[in-house]
Formats: sequence, structure tokens, C-alpha cells
Amino acid sequence: MLYLIGLGLGDAADITVKGLQAVKSCSRVYLEAYTSILTVGKEALEEFYGKDLILADRDLVEQGADEILKDADVTDVAFLVVGDPFGATTHSDLVLRAVHAGIPYRVIHNASIMNAVGCCGLQLYNFGETVSLVFWTDTWRPESFYDKICKNRTAGLHTLCLLGKKIFEPPRFMTVSQAADQLIQIIQRRREEEQGAELGVTEDTVCVGVARLGADDQKICTAMLRQLVSCDLGGPLHSLLVTGRLHPLEVDMLRVSAEPNALQHLHMIDSSTYCS
Amino acid sequence: MLYLIGLGLGDAADITVKGLQAVKSCSRVYLEAYTSILTVGKEALEEFYGKDLILADRDLVEQGADEILKDADVTDVAFLVVGDPFGATTHSDLVLRAVHAGIPYRVIHNASIMNAVGCCGLQLYNFGETVSLVFWTDTWRPESFYDKICKNRTAGLHTLCLLGKKIFEPPRFMTVSQAADQLIQIIQRRREEEQGAELGVTEDTVCVGVARLGADDQKICTAMLRQLVSCDLGGPLHSLLVTGRLHPLEVDMLRVSAEPNALQHLHMIDSSTYCS
Repeated sequence: MLYLIGLGLGDAADITVKGLQAVKSCSRVYLEAYTSILTVGKEALEEFYGKDLILADRDLVEQGADEILKDADVTDVAFLVVGDPFGATTHSDLVLRAVHAGIPYRVIHNASIMNAVGCCGLQLYNFGETVSLVFWTDTWRPESFYDKICKNRTAGLHTLCLLGKKIFEPPRFMTVSQAADQLIQIIQRRREEEQGAELGVTEDTVCVGVARLGADDQKICTAMLRQLVSCDLGGPLHSLLVTGRLHPLEVDMLRVSAEPNALQHLHMIDSSTYCS
Repeated sequence: MLYLIGLGLGDAADITVKGLQAVKSCSRVYLEAYTSILTVGKEALEEFYGKDLILADRDLVEQGADEILKDADVTDVAFLVVGDPFGATTHSDLVLRAVHAGIPYRVIHNASIMNAVGCCGLQLYNFGETVSLVFWTDTWRPESFYDKICKNRTAGLHTLCLLGKKIFEPPRFMTVSQAADQLIQIIQRRREEEQGAELGVTEDTVCVGVARLGADDQKICTAMLRQLVSCDLGGPLHSLLVTGRLHPLEVDMLRVSAEPNALQHLHMIDSSTYCS
């Protein structure tokens, strides 16, 4: 059996009881190590599980899948993934290889950034398409994610912006501050280009910066986009939420994590249309 | 401290190790019992946790919140929620009451239907707005969710349809078959009404029926919408996914759970545009 086991978002104790039982029963345990990070290292997990872990980098998962699946028809093998195995990054490739080799597989789910962001108070069923922000280079400055965010917002929907998903290079994690800065550069360029046109998302749009969600030291900061540029939320992983139409209960929840200036802005939302 | 603890989707062992530790440390443990169900009952959970549980029905959570929060500033109280505390149903009300009473709170996340559906092979970041289907009455036959599904699909996005979220009455759970039937009634009515207009979602649209996701006996069935009408996926909870634009890897994953006829349809998708 191939077990795909989600580790959740915080530390070693965020694995489920079922997941831990499976890990303990497996003869080989791989830790997927290239798309995401826990706030604890491999050693802390090994100590918690009482098991040695094999780090699975991108090469191993893509070129060495046969090695991972070796004998998995007669023994149990676990593949551990931060968050949920089918969260922001899916592991369909490995599953399909198992299926084609006649190896049964089982998924043990856990929280991922895709559902845990609900804790900031924005309701998950009011989110539109998720977008990813990438680091710009001198010659490559994609803006398509901005149009998706605006499209969501026009439809009244919130947007989850995944940051720093750089899996083709050594990991480099984008901060909420960097993401806000990139968005504002786009807004300024568009404003010059499309003079007079009303932009869907501006410097005043209420956004939520989220860092290390699910960990003991998680940080959630609700503020106007312009304020988030100078906001230091500490170490990775960060995500940015751009609000759409806000329900009064969502406004109340956002107040809990709001900057003083944004509080005022939320008050304005609250007392008018609930849609900034 | 008020702990809001997600139980995940399957049975007692789907709680996280961190969640279980918190449950054991609490002086009172409430089980939210009106919006969702586990595949196991209260007694099985009590045995697994070694703790008595207090069932929290809708009245208790809405009118008796003070009782739940009583002394939570000096003792630990747990509020257990199937899935994630901020999944399909949020518990913002209780959190806000705690905040206003000066009681610290902590969320221990888990998988919810909102992220666990990724295991069928559709990528979570390609989902649009989530919709809820409700049982029709003789005089109330809302169709707005159909327009949302079509809007998502036109934008290339998948839709998660939550079924049977009836929290104002004794729970009654809609099956995938009933949901498919309701959708087809809408499609037929629209076809008569808007003669010649091309509908965004039809009887031939590839959909995925999901039952008891995360449980040992979960069922996933990929088929054309018309096929799902006669598809029996067993006991609750069911969800329905309507596909948008399909990536080749998504098509390959859907094949794993596909009905023979839908297989043929997926083959057609596969060999043409990847967008049915």
C-alpha cells in the first residue's frame, strides 16, 4: 500500500492519529521536501514518529518514482506531504504511477493552506479562483494574476494568493510585503495606462496577510494593501488574501486582526455597503 | 482557552495528535452536531478520547454560547467540529463571543470537504466559487447555483457543490443522484426557455460524485451528469463536482474513478481540447 499522508501546517503534532499509525506501520517513509515547508525540520519529525525519513526532492519524485513505489504491493510505503497531499500542490503523478503498477493507495487528509485560511474570518465558499504570485525578473513581469483577482473581486469573491511557490529553484519565499509591493506596482502601471479607468483592486483594498498559518506563532494582519507593504510578518510561509464583497460577520472577524487604520476602513465598510 | 478543533472527515482517528492532546486537557468538550456528521457516533468518539462529550445542537451554540464559554478564561474548553472549524460552515459567532469576553482561542485545523476533494484529481486552485444545493419544495425551486456553476465553467473553473446542508430542520442529506436530477431539471427547463441558446452545463458535462470522503468506504465516481442520476453512492455525506477546463493530468486522474461510458467521453476530451 502507498500511503499519501498530509502533515498539516504547523509542527510534528499536526499529523492525524490515523496518519501517525500509518507512518509507524510503514517500512519506508518519504518526506516530500521541495514544494513546501513545515516550521520544524526532518529531525524533529523523525523523533516524533520514531522513524527514519527519506527526503524526497523533486528529482526523486519525478525520476525516482519507481524507487519510491518499489515493493509497495507487498509492503507499506508512506509519502508525507506538508499540508494535504492534494492541497496547493498535487501529487497526481505518483498516484497514477501507483495505479498503473497495480499498487493500492490511500490518502490520509489534513489541513492545507487552501482550507485553513478560513480562520481569518473570510468564508471559504466566497473564494474565487486561487492565484500564484512569482518573483519578477528584469525581463519577466507577469500580471495575469492581477486580472484574476479583479475578476474575483468584481464577482464579489475573495482571492487566495499563494506566494513563493518556486519549485524549479532552491526555495525562496515571497513575503506578504513583497507581494503587496508587486501588486501596487501593477496598480500604478495600470492607472497610468488606462487613465480614468476604475481599477478592480487598488491600494485601499482591504487585504489579509497571513504567515505560518496553523503554527504556534502564526500571524494574521488585516489592512489596506498599501499598509501591507511595510508589514513584517516574520518567517515563511506567507499568503495574501484579497477581499471581495464582505459579509457583516466577515467584517467582524477581520476586525480581530485589523491594523488601526484598516479598522477605520472596515468601519466604513461596515456602515455602508459591506463591499469595499 | 477555547480550542476549536477540527475532527477531519472520516472516523475518530482522523483527529490530529495536537487536537487529541488538547481534548484530553480540557475540562469540557463540546461536539458540534448540527451542520455535519462523522461516519462514527458520539460514543465511538468518547471511547477514543477517553472523555465525555456534550452534544452542542444549534440552540446551544446560538443561545447557549455563554454556557460553552463559561470559565474558559481560567480553564480549557474544546469545541469539536467535523472537518475544519472554518470549513464549509464557520464558527465565527462563537469565536467573536470569546474575543469580546477576553477569552483566548486557538484553532486546531484539519481536513475539510473544501480541500479534501482534491483527491479526485481536480486541482484545487482551478475551482471557482463553491455552491450549495438545497432540497426544492413545491413553491421554492432556486436555480441561482446553476448560473454560478455555468459562470465557473465558462471561466474554465471547476465547481464544488455542497449537498444537503439543511441546518434549520432535522438533517436530511441530498444524494449525488438527487443533485444530478435537480440539475438536469434545470437544464431541461432552460433549454425549453432559451431555445437554441448554448447551455454552460448539460447532461453530458463530466461530473464527479463523491461520497463519505476521507472515510474507509469513500466512493468517487466520475461520469456524465446524466449517468450520475442513476448512481448509488451509499450513505451520506455526498458532494458533487462539476468540471471546468480539464488539464491532461486531471483527465488521467479522473479516469481512475470513471464509469466506462464516461471513460469514452474522457478519451474524447483527452484527444481534443481538454475542455468538454
